[in-house]
Amino acid sequence: MARLYIWQIMKAGETVTDEEYMQMALDLAEKARGCTSPNPLVGCVIVNPEGQIVGKGYHHKAGQPHAEIMAMADAGNQVEGCTAYVTLEPCSHYGRTGPCCEALIRAGIKKVVAAADDPNPKVAGRGFARLQEAGVEVVRGVLADKANRQNEVFMHWMKTGRPFVALKYAMTLDGKIATASGDSKWISNEQSRTYAHKLRSIYDCILVGKNTVLNDDPSLTCRLVEGKNPLRIVLDSHCQLPMDRKVFTDGEARTLLVTSLKADRDKAAAFQALDQVTVWQIPEKNGALDLGILLDRLGQQEKTSVLVEGGSQVHGAFFDGKLAQRVYAFIAPCLIGGKRNLGAIGGRGARNMDLRVTLQEPQYEAFGTDLMVTGLLERS
Amino acid sequence: MARLYIWQIMKAGETVTDEEYMQMALDLAEKARGCTSPNPLVGCVIVNPEGQIVGKGYHHKAGQPHAEIMAMADAGNQVEGCTAYVTLEPCSHYGRTGPCCEALIRAGIKKVVAAADDPNPKVAGRGFARLQEAGVEVVRGVLADKANRQNEVFMHWMKTGRPFVALKYAMTLDGKIATASGDSKWISNEQSRTYAHKLRSIYDCILVGKNTVLNDDPSLTCRLVEGKNPLRIVLDSHCQLPMDRKVFTDGEARTLLVTSLKADRDKAAAFQALDQVTVWQIPEKNGALDLGILLDRLGQQEKTSVLVEGGSQVHGAFFDGKLAQRVYAFIAPCLIGGKRNLGAIGGRGARNMDLRVTLQEPQYEAFGTDLMVTGLLERS
Repeated sequence: MARLYIWQIMKAGETVTDEEYMQMALDLAEKARGCTSPNPLVGCVIVNPEGQIVGKGYHHKAGQPHAEIMAMADAGNQVEGCTAYVTLEPCSHYGRTGPCCEALIRAGIKKVVAAADDPNPKVAGRGFARLQEAGVEVVRGVLADKANRQNEVFMHWMKTGRPFVALKYAMTLDGKIATASGDSKWISNEQSRTYAHKLRSIYDCILVGKNTVLNDDPSLTCRLVEGKNPLRIVLDSHCQLPMDRKVFTDGEARTLLVTSLKADRDKAAAFQALDQVTVWQIPEKNGALDLGILLDRLGQQEKTSVLVEGGSQVHGAFFDGKLAQRVYAFIAPCLIGGKRNLGAIGGRGARNMDLRVTLQEPQYEAFGTDLMVTGLLERS
Repeated sequence: MARLYIWQIMKAGETVTDEEYMQMALDLAEKARGCTSPNPLVGCVIVNPEGQIVGKGYHHKAGQPHAEIMAMADAGNQVEGCTAYVTLEPCSHYGRTGPCCEALIRAGIKKVVAAADDPNPKVAGRGFARLQEAGVEVVRGVLADKANRQNEVFMHWMKTGRPFVALKYAMTLDGKIATASGDSKWISNEQSRTYAHKLRSIYDCILVGKNTVLNDDPSLTCRLVEGKNPLRIVLDSHCQLPMDRKVFTDGEARTLLVTSLKADRDKAAAFQALDQVTVWQIPEKNGALDLGILLDRLGQQEKTSVLVEGGSQVHGAFFDGKLAQRVYAFIAPCLIGGKRNLGAIGGRGARNMDLRVTLQEPQYEAFGTDLMVTGLLERS
């Protein structure tokens, strides 16, 4: 059990603050990034009255035990009278696993310090109420902003019923993502592309338009990194794509082909008959696929996040519809110019600068000579 | 004279290398950035046989003494037997001032260590030859790359007869510099704009297209910083701009209006009659102003550098014509989208990715939440 005292040794003579314990819990939660969908990331640290950490745990995967249960199991028989630091309000309902509140109470936890409130309407506030009812002291909101950001996908999905949508593109230093003929290989460097594959492994779905499949014949897998491939979603209103494209034939991951209700039913049926391919025919809105309906349906199917990888027109549709919550822009130090070469985000766009969308919480990262800028398109 | 021994104290017990002395000379030269045109930046350090710096100098302004003369004056009667570290080959010809080679020889300098060779055909190699002829030891090429980069403008102008051209733009994270209606106020933040004014003070000329003057009515001065305003160049093929625009009326700096030979002569004459306004009527090429001819004429008039501030079409013309040597791209963390909103570089552009221009020696700087990327469009 010596490992449990490492933090204590590091902090010899110092008082560890609630924020420091919570940061450890957030770090634990982070280990399962990309593995817990549709569940949130949650971490938990159990601390005894002497300030020693006696148990640590995090939620590994949907269907597996919650973080609190993992941490208490780690602590063994030392839980009674301890404080539990947990990054999300403990659940009070019976879901895939039993409610954590009851387990905490049963084990004799004296105090619960929580970061984020659970946005799930089935839980919100009830977990805290149940704990207090049983005489457990509750402290809420410690590092709440960090915890909410860590679970931006889950929070958005729970609140809206729709997946969290991120636009991802690689552009030249003059803002182009492809030539007019559709050539885009390769704008960004290998380090950027590896990171982009990491993103794919974290998101539930990856979405592209017809032209991207037609021009690039991409696999849309996360083959450059370890991790699960996302569901591949292809928008093709008129169901015009050839059936030999990799996304329909390579069997590397499931593919969802989305067409309009007007698309040829026989063609749609032919795609549906392919192994690992599903076809959805959805209504149009203003002459284009109704992306709101698509997102609603994806949300209902427990798809909590979508990474939109273009092209220009698809990014424009999500941007114009205010349907995207985040952007990942990779910028390569090269130029192609050209009025007709394709900009990162097409569509109608803003008519004047006052209508621009300013990124919230922008972050910057360098990948070799490429830059990556990410940020939120709205406060979520 | 105590100040002259500061470097010596700093380096007590160490040997100062040629590169370190040369770096000091480069730092001295840099002090006159933006002030020496059409002359280069030059710095000089005089070191005695004991390794002590006895004189430092740099070229302040065209018409004023060269760096070597300044450094020898600073050293007073301690020059004999010393080594001169100078960032550019000393001149051997009689220009605005007497030749530095003769002055170095006369003063008894024993050794000259130089960084860059002078690209001026009147001087190239002759300075070194003259020194050697007089028994002065010569070492060439110490920190030559740095010295050439420091004088990229001068080197380009001397070699080609044309000013060094830099494209400068502020774009959104999706690569737009304005809405379709021409609104661009303000994409970049105040820190970026202040730096952009610093650039204006360093370049001899600033150049914009008709639409920029029509939409923004800019002053094109460097009012946010100290420094000299550049010559304002406005491209207006058909001489259609209204005469009330600030660049023609505010008297803050000279303005050069460039029209085609086809433009109405009376209108051109009316502009020419304005105080501080000059009109050039130049030939067209493929239906647009022949920018090569414009650059030739500017070079002949000792304009060594031009900062092109758009818009999209003007950047495109310089890019397509391979007439630009550097780019400064300011990137703001905001999005406007829109297929018809204006991209940073218009024109024809590259037809496929193989024809992209990859920036050489890219550099990155943050201005608050804005990013600035600069680099060379060709090795110069």
